[in-house]
Amino acid sequence: MTAKNYRQAQASEASLLRIFTIPEDAESTLSIIEQKLSEDLAGFLGKSIAALEKPLSLIEKDFRAYQIPDSPRFVSDYTDEIMKNLVAHSVHTSAPSFIGHMTSALPYFVLPLSKMMVGLNQNLVKIETSKAFTPLERQVLGMMHHLIFDQADSFYNQWMHSANYSLGAFCSGGTVANITALWIARNQLLKADGTFKGVNREGLPRALKHYGYDDLAILVSERGHYSIGKTADLLGIGRDNIVSIPTNANNKVDVEQMRQTAAKLAKENIKVMAIVGVAGTTETGNIDPLSELAQLASELQCHFHVDAAWGGASLLSDKYRYLLKGIELADSVTIDAHKQMYVPMGAGMVLFKDPELAHAIAHHAEYILRVGSKDLGSQTLEGSRPGMAMLVHACLQIIGSEGYEILINNSLEKARYFAQEINQHQEFELITEPELCILTYRYVPQAVQSFMEQALRNNDIASVKLCNKLLDGLTQFIQKHQREQGKSFVSRTRIKPAKYQRQATTVFRVVLANPLTTDEILNDVLQEQTEIAKLDSHYLPQLLAMTE
Amino acid sequence: MTAKNYRQAQASEASLLRIFTIPEDAESTLSIIEQKLSEDLAGFLGKSIAALEKPLSLIEKDFRAYQIPDSPRFVSDYTDEIMKNLVAHSVHTSAPSFIGHMTSALPYFVLPLSKMMVGLNQNLVKIETSKAFTPLERQVLGMMHHLIFDQADSFYNQWMHSANYSLGAFCSGGTVANITALWIARNQLLKADGTFKGVNREGLPRALKHYGYDDLAILVSERGHYSIGKTADLLGIGRDNIVSIPTNANNKVDVEQMRQTAAKLAKENIKVMAIVGVAGTTETGNIDPLSELAQLASELQCHFHVDAAWGGASLLSDKYRYLLKGIELADSVTIDAHKQMYVPMGAGMVLFKDPELAHAIAHHAEYILRVGSKDLGSQTLEGSRPGMAMLVHACLQIIGSEGYEILINNSLEKARYFAQEINQHQEFELITEPELCILTYRYVPQAVQSFMEQALRNNDIASVKLCNKLLDGLTQFIQKHQREQGKSFVSRTRIKPAKYQRQATTVFRVVLANPLTTDEILNDVLQEQTEIAKLDSHYLPQLLAMTE
Repeated sequence: MTAKNYRQAQASEASLLRIFTIPEDAESTLSIIEQKLSEDLAGFLGKSIAALEKPLSLIEKDFRAYQIPDSPRFVSDYTDEIMKNLVAHSVHTSAPSFIGHMTSALPYFVLPLSKMMVGLNQNLVKIETSKAFTPLERQVLGMMHHLIFDQADSFYNQWMHSANYSLGAFCSGGTVANITALWIARNQLLKADGTFKGVNREGLPRALKHYGYDDLAILVSERGHYSIGKTADLLGIGRDNIVSIPTNANNKVDVEQMRQTAAKLAKENIKVMAIVGVAGTTETGNIDPLSELAQLASELQCHFHVDAAWGGASLLSDKYRYLLKGIELADSVTIDAHKQMYVPMGAGMVLFKDPELAHAIAHHAEYILRVGSKDLGSQTLEGSRPGMAMLVHACLQIIGSEGYEILINNSLEKARYFAQEINQHQEFELITEPELCILTYRYVPQAVQSFMEQALRNNDIASVKLCNKLLDGLTQFIQKHQREQGKSFVSRTRIKPAKYQRQATTVFRVVLANPLTTDEILNDVLQEQTEIAKLDSHYLPQLLAMTE
Repeated sequence: MTAKNYRQAQASEASLLRIFTIPEDAESTLSIIEQKLSEDLAGFLGKSIAALEKPLSLIEKDFRAYQIPDSPRFVSDYTDEIMKNLVAHSVHTSAPSFIGHMTSALPYFVLPLSKMMVGLNQNLVKIETSKAFTPLERQVLGMMHHLIFDQADSFYNQWMHSANYSLGAFCSGGTVANITALWIARNQLLKADGTFKGVNREGLPRALKHYGYDDLAILVSERGHYSIGKTADLLGIGRDNIVSIPTNANNKVDVEQMRQTAAKLAKENIKVMAIVGVAGTTETGNIDPLSELAQLASELQCHFHVDAAWGGASLLSDKYRYLLKGIELADSVTIDAHKQMYVPMGAGMVLFKDPELAHAIAHHAEYILRVGSKDLGSQTLEGSRPGMAMLVHACLQIIGSEGYEILINNSLEKARYFAQEINQHQEFELITEPELCILTYRYVPQAVQSFMEQALRNNDIASVKLCNKLLDGLTQFIQKHQREQGKSFVSRTRIKPAKYQRQATTVFRVVLANPLTTDEILNDVLQEQTEIAKLDSHYLPQLLAMTE
């Protein structure tokens, strides 16, 4: 052991100070790994992550110890261990054939920038611990605000850096963004009035009493994200007061039914606190008719929030931004930069049309967040926060809107190509067309297809239902098996297609945001699924037997 | 421009793919900066961060643009720009003389590990996007649980990796941790009962009606963190239902007064939902009498939460963990690893004594978080989250409990040393003694000291008050000036010392967690403050005039 690579492994003050003052030796295990990461991330991940899936129960064996170890360890020993136990059994989320979730490949420059961000260790809650990071974050929020709401020069000059006003809030993710938006909506609706000090001070029961409502409700498509239910629970409104509105055949909320529901609620003295538009849905990527929802929100005089955590990035495409028409009429919009904007995990945002909106949740504290300061923490749900906005800033500047135009358009067009391939394939059934870059489909053996078509023609719903149930098993089998083989990954979910009388149906779900996913990879995915289907010894014979 | 360092700056598909596939050239601006960061972080920060403070209004000029730029930019140009506009005007939070907030120096190994974490880009919401990171996070929570609650082997073997149970939740920070704990407390108290489906489903107004309470209350010391107020607002309880209980001369909550308050509330049919113990307070670092609070919570049959966001790390010291005695009686405990555990920003945790507690906020969704899965997201406030637990895991293993013992003890003892220095100094007044490693003090010119002592002896409260008011101005002047000079930084806050009839008093606040802060630096801080005091042309003469 040379003096240089001696890092730790005995607890003395001197050895401890070394980990804070003496950098990793360039020849150390960790430095070599970092070097490999810098030189070829995809190669590093490809080599380090095991191709074959290890059962979770076995992985857990390596994480069984529940006592903090007494003795310090060498950084190199620790690194060897996590390469074997952790990294090898993590998920290659940036693989071009990992098309099942919303994580994607990252641009290289975010790696050194992230390291710089960690080294700077700013805390965005307050100017005193973040300085220039505060105007930077405000600028990022301003740019996203402009992308959505497109206000005049004077608007941004006046508000972007103005103390006590916010064009939005940076959050750890879309869930916190959605919670923030609806928290504001609730507090805005039930604000101080006469002797009533506001829901923020007196609480929801007294607020309802003061305003004379029996209850509050939030209206959202049945395809709304589960974070909306979580929000209703958290805010004291109750999950049952999320009124789930049916969607049409294209998974878009039925605005007329929403209007009728609102009228019914009004008769019951239940106040609609907010309408949430989905853009697009997590499962199918479809976008609600936002302009019509805005119109309804205006009729009901309620807050209009758009959850564009996933779809919002499509505004960066001039060609396709029309798909989100009406989003500019929202009071608040959620966008996750860690989804289709190619920023690492942990970069959610909510944007407010009106810079005064966040007053509804403002709070102050003596040692921090003094009144009149520009501290970002006085109008956010979270307290201490890292400088993640820097990575969004970097992507916006380095990729630019012309770059995003290409990335987004390619994703959407790749999804259209894949849908076409599925449609043309004899044994696959496209369940939902891609509107953005998400689509769902399933594998249906040809014989089963003919059988189901006939059953549908004969209105033999019982047979269709039975068939679908067996196909669910097959879809699940294929998806699990494909994941375990480790070559490619699609996710699965259950949706209720209009074509099948809204029977819950298990489908493959594909998200095509990775710029490195090629047409060839997509064809291989289908090829692999076809082969796996043939392995199924349980469902397939049953299905085929039905058709005889 | 060589082919190699050509990165971007024209938006073509080919140039875009390059940012995802071709690493930064080793000779590029960003690579060189990264290299410097790796070789000498403190040196890099020292050189890159401007010593003199630039006014915020000038910094903002560099972040005025609100339009996303059309054209892509070279990574090197962008890097040059942020080094000048952003990094130069960020805050050197890890400087040994930056003793005003809870950020500290970081161990070197977290830099490459953070980069690896970003490169892996796992999403902890779900096994499918995190795999081994899920058991790793559960292990970290298990270790922290064991540190606090010290349950038997069988307990951890049974629960640590058990689906649908959680020993805690990993959060972006202490605020989300506190919200999570009190959300659980509320839902647990107002759970489903007979035909009532629970506050999570029916909301708070109906829940109160069902259980027959007029209101809920949360009892906490007047020194409680502002996130508790935020939580009461968010949960629909209302900030006014946070009942702030006075503290004794040592800034510890007066349990007897809390008991009397609870009795009074019971008569008004207001149910105490939770007692929050503070360990330690953000402003003075003092720890509430946790055992007594636990006893009271048990009498009131309410949830007992301990906010140990800051102080919890002191449990890692065998020598000082007695200071937190009673924490093991809590139902839930918040600890931030990004505070005294030397992990970068973004690593909060809440631990639950009872692994069933999180059921109160459990939620599921079809495409994700299926019932019975081990997906962490089904029992957390946040949705998608990065693999930050890895950095806590690394620190626990590499530093070990023996290492933390030394780090924590040194911090506490450094604070005791500094308190002694202040006490011995003729022109400084120690306002609060350090219990952990936080203390407050102020500068009082000798002449003013004699004058005040006499006024106190004569019970001339008006003079004392006037003096204090003028001293507030002086303290503020010194703190601002010292910050602007950029050599060292202490924070300031306002507290109500018993000695001064609880008059709000501005004080310097010092947090001594950085292992690199030496006694010499502390003496320099006092020296610098003495010199700045002499520059004050406004308050000081007034003060001195008073004493004549």
